[in-house]
Amino acid sequence: MRLALAQINPIVGDLAGNRDRILARIEEARASEADLVLFPELATTGYPPEDLLLRPGFVRAAERSLEEIARAARQIVVLVGTPHYDRDLYNACAVCAHGEVRAIYRKRFLPNYGVFDEDRYFASGHEPILLRLGDCLIGPTVCEDIWQPGPPATDLTLAGAQLVANISASPFHVGKDREREQMLATRARDNACFIAFCNAVGAQDELIFDGHSLLLDDEGTVLARAPGFEEALLVVDVDPAIAVGSRLRDVRRRALARDRGEAEEIPVVEVGAARARPGGGPSRPPLAPLLDDLEQMRLALELGLRDYVDKNGFHDVVLGISGGIDSALTAALAAEALGADRVHGVTMPSRYSSQGTRADALALGGTLGIDVRELPIDALAGAFESLLAPSFAGHEPDLAEENLQARIRGTLLMALSNKFGWLVVATGNKSELSVGYATLYGDMAGGFALLKDVYKTDVFRLARHLNERAGRELIPQTTIERAPSAELRADQLDEDSLPPYPELDRVLRAYVELDRSREELSSDGFDPALVERALALIDRAEYKRRQAPPGVKLRPKAFGRDRRMPITNRWRG
Amino acid sequence: MRLALAQINPIVGDLAGNRDRILARIEEARASEADLVLFPELATTGYPPEDLLLRPGFVRAAERSLEEIARAARQIVVLVGTPHYDRDLYNACAVCAHGEVRAIYRKRFLPNYGVFDEDRYFASGHEPILLRLGDCLIGPTVCEDIWQPGPPATDLTLAGAQLVANISASPFHVGKDREREQMLATRARDNACFIAFCNAVGAQDELIFDGHSLLLDDEGTVLARAPGFEEALLVVDVDPAIAVGSRLRDVRRRALARDRGEAEEIPVVEVGAARARPGGGPSRPPLAPLLDDLEQMRLALELGLRDYVDKNGFHDVVLGISGGIDSALTAALAAEALGADRVHGVTMPSRYSSQGTRADALALGGTLGIDVRELPIDALAGAFESLLAPSFAGHEPDLAEENLQARIRGTLLMALSNKFGWLVVATGNKSELSVGYATLYGDMAGGFALLKDVYKTDVFRLARHLNERAGRELIPQTTIERAPSAELRADQLDEDSLPPYPELDRVLRAYVELDRSREELSSDGFDPALVERALALIDRAEYKRRQAPPGVKLRPKAFGRDRRMPITNRWRG
Repeated sequence: MRLALAQINPIVGDLAGNRDRILARIEEARASEADLVLFPELATTGYPPEDLLLRPGFVRAAERSLEEIARAARQIVVLVGTPHYDRDLYNACAVCAHGEVRAIYRKRFLPNYGVFDEDRYFASGHEPILLRLGDCLIGPTVCEDIWQPGPPATDLTLAGAQLVANISASPFHVGKDREREQMLATRARDNACFIAFCNAVGAQDELIFDGHSLLLDDEGTVLARAPGFEEALLVVDVDPAIAVGSRLRDVRRRALARDRGEAEEIPVVEVGAARARPGGGPSRPPLAPLLDDLEQMRLALELGLRDYVDKNGFHDVVLGISGGIDSALTAALAAEALGADRVHGVTMPSRYSSQGTRADALALGGTLGIDVRELPIDALAGAFESLLAPSFAGHEPDLAEENLQARIRGTLLMALSNKFGWLVVATGNKSELSVGYATLYGDMAGGFALLKDVYKTDVFRLARHLNERAGRELIPQTTIERAPSAELRADQLDEDSLPPYPELDRVLRAYVELDRSREELSSDGFDPALVERALALIDRAEYKRRQAPPGVKLRPKAFGRDRRMPITNRWRG
Repeated sequence: MRLALAQINPIVGDLAGNRDRILARIEEARASEADLVLFPELATTGYPPEDLLLRPGFVRAAERSLEEIARAARQIVVLVGTPHYDRDLYNACAVCAHGEVRAIYRKRFLPNYGVFDEDRYFASGHEPILLRLGDCLIGPTVCEDIWQPGPPATDLTLAGAQLVANISASPFHVGKDREREQMLATRARDNACFIAFCNAVGAQDELIFDGHSLLLDDEGTVLARAPGFEEALLVVDVDPAIAVGSRLRDVRRRALARDRGEAEEIPVVEVGAARARPGGGPSRPPLAPLLDDLEQMRLALELGLRDYVDKNGFHDVVLGISGGIDSALTAALAAEALGADRVHGVTMPSRYSSQGTRADALALGGTLGIDVRELPIDALAGAFESLLAPSFAGHEPDLAEENLQARIRGTLLMALSNKFGWLVVATGNKSELSVGYATLYGDMAGGFALLKDVYKTDVFRLARHLNERAGRELIPQTTIERAPSAELRADQLDEDSLPPYPELDRVLRAYVELDRSREELSSDGFDPALVERALALIDRAEYKRRQAPPGVKLRPKAFGRDRRMPITNRWRG
């Protein structure tokens, strides 16, 4: 049997475009003589469509789109994710063959944790189905279904499925590819079945779908792997009937069959015969490599920015270049993602900007090949301060004057954005955003906050990584080595206000991502004074984060839909 | 039996404070000789605690808090909402009597739509319980449980409950009090039971809990009603044994009992005897009145702002006063909510400000008694334009220059906020925010957007309403009558850019709140050109709304957690 995994990049709401993407890949798969082609979860609508699913008109349009896809399913079986309304709404895998929708499998397990809200939209399905394609029985499942150790996979395979097909839109975080691969290998072995996992690829607002579609055999060996962070059509020959062999040897799973007793019969849908292959060796494309953490981050960030820009109809981006490492890294990533000619840098020095940062800011134009203009802000800061002088009389300069500078810069970037249609990319990192070391409407201003989920320690690692890949100083070494400073007053250093970043980032991981309590953190060995200070800052900054632009989720828990904290919150624990 | 409904205003995360509030009300109820006192859903933690519920330390602390409350439950039975962990986490109603937790009822129906995310946090309970207090059987339920027409209420009453107790945190929208009262009256009649409904009151970020706690008899008659939008302890004598009479007459519900067959027995928890009352007439406080829509809006907005300010530790607020109706209404509401001495107005005229608006802006200081200072922005606008002149050369003035003015104003307000710790209140309304007729980081800047869910047509109605209540022009009549204008260029009127507000607001209700499609709107009789124009504006403004401050939810669907739309979204339907 020849199997095709169509790892595509749908756009949320673009029903016509998604349909055309799917039709083109069906054509390609058929030309490759595939018997079966898989598309990701909710491929017709893009994932997650969120509250578009509450609109009857949207659901009806997706159903019309599916009909058109089904008509193209000739000489090939198509499994495609789509919303399906039948007395209630389901997250479905439509089985198309012979030019029509032959069956609908309804997702059973609906994730409603982390970034997911599927209980908000969908009813849960309770009827597994089997597809007979030639002499192979295939059990379709949707995403979360395969993350459950029991049914539907156990039921499907006990009922004879040799191949479990899983269509997914599985959101990325660093290392997710390996977790997922381990899990799928375990499922394949537990159930003595082949597994075909077809994942979406691309970015949707804050989420990345990393691709890495897979085919595993009944021993959990990866037979085929699609690349990460790009579209692919993986065509591979398999013989899932091999699974019968391991089942005859497998005593363990018979115990499960006995316990199960008289389970209800799973209906079998006939979808056709596998094509006879007229010779030629089997299609077995080389395995795409797994990537290390830094490459995953780099590619995810670039994909996230590129898709946000392109899918939202922007062309160019603009960002403030301070001479510091955050803006240098953001600019370098943007130049790689979009091309240097689509990136505009603005350096906005003040009297507090050092010679070093001013020089590095201008140098970046040269190393990255982006345009950098200079707009000095001292005159504006002075004009604001004069106007406010009667109100501020008798008060020492403080955060108000510092934030003023940041907001003048934000306003200048937004003016360029309004005039030229450029998307403003904010340059703050996760460490700053966690503790609120950022100015709302100032350096936080923008349509997209690229480094929103990148810890400061990872900013340094990524900067070095980009330089190493390039074999030259894309980001000036002086920028990497200079002690971080906001340069909003004389001789200011981040470490005057914040714990050293390596310590801070460790606390952030434990508190923000793992929800460790104050007491637990102390017993974990963190300095109690550091914990006290960091947690107070983190809790207090929730109101700022609520107004932050979206950015690429890289970590198991990112700010945004992933971490839903009240602003009004007196809990200190 | 004497019943007390403790309609309290908990603060999310303030476990010690909430415990003390609860203890004080237990004391008060006992002093009133009540047999039973009800507290709202999740009263120990505040509602909704959101992702605080993912922290084991928080859940443990709530359990310790419950133990302290239980110790105070002597000579009175206490029903109080709290999270309860027992192999999994439940949204529970703890039954405290004789100084201990005697039983835990676990909420069965978890809302996961609209503003709710309860499937994210809680497991669903499946074991109803009955409490015997004297000769009365009481069935405890939590919020959503009573919105379901069947169990648990039907099961509880078929098993003998004469009183269904419902502890709630039921979010407000205009008219919700009447909907809820109708629903509860129907439940009381359907089940031939008394219903005690104890609701939370107060604001939590965007949500308002309106109170309006109720006691209904078995014919659906309201025996007692607590006031809206303020705390109360409603003490009322009831004899739920009366319900037995209507049951003997009631044939209809016996059919349900027959259908139910042999249902599992519901365990009965003995909680004590009702107190003998030593004479004196029954406690039957007068019914708090139901309020009309405008009063509901006014009180909800004032409660929303006051609680946001107070619970977050602010004292004063500051807002821009343009001379237009939005800022005038915001200032008037703020002055009523907080007191005029806590409200600071800033008028920031430009060359485009008319004599009329400038005069009205200054007049508002007098009518409201708030301080109003003037900070003219022309010099700053000129300074920005000079700095940007080389970049803007060859381009006509457009939105960039208009937004610049709005952002200068936002920056000035934020500078005052930073210097004096005042909360900036943004003054935009729902109509503007819907279509994106607002400047990000400009007039949208602030910690709280009071009118975020108030349509422009309602802004006018509310302004007139406030003046009528005051019996004088709190808001100058000239402000109410002047055609709306952003005054960001010469002779600008809102109607140059937008459909007339009465038409726009009708489209917004249908599209935003009811999810009507483009086609449906046209067949509803809306002008297709108007629909086309409005929908394009609404869809395109999602990115702005994502960065908007929180504001008071007044409508069945508000922007924010209530309406979760993707930013990247090509659907136009």
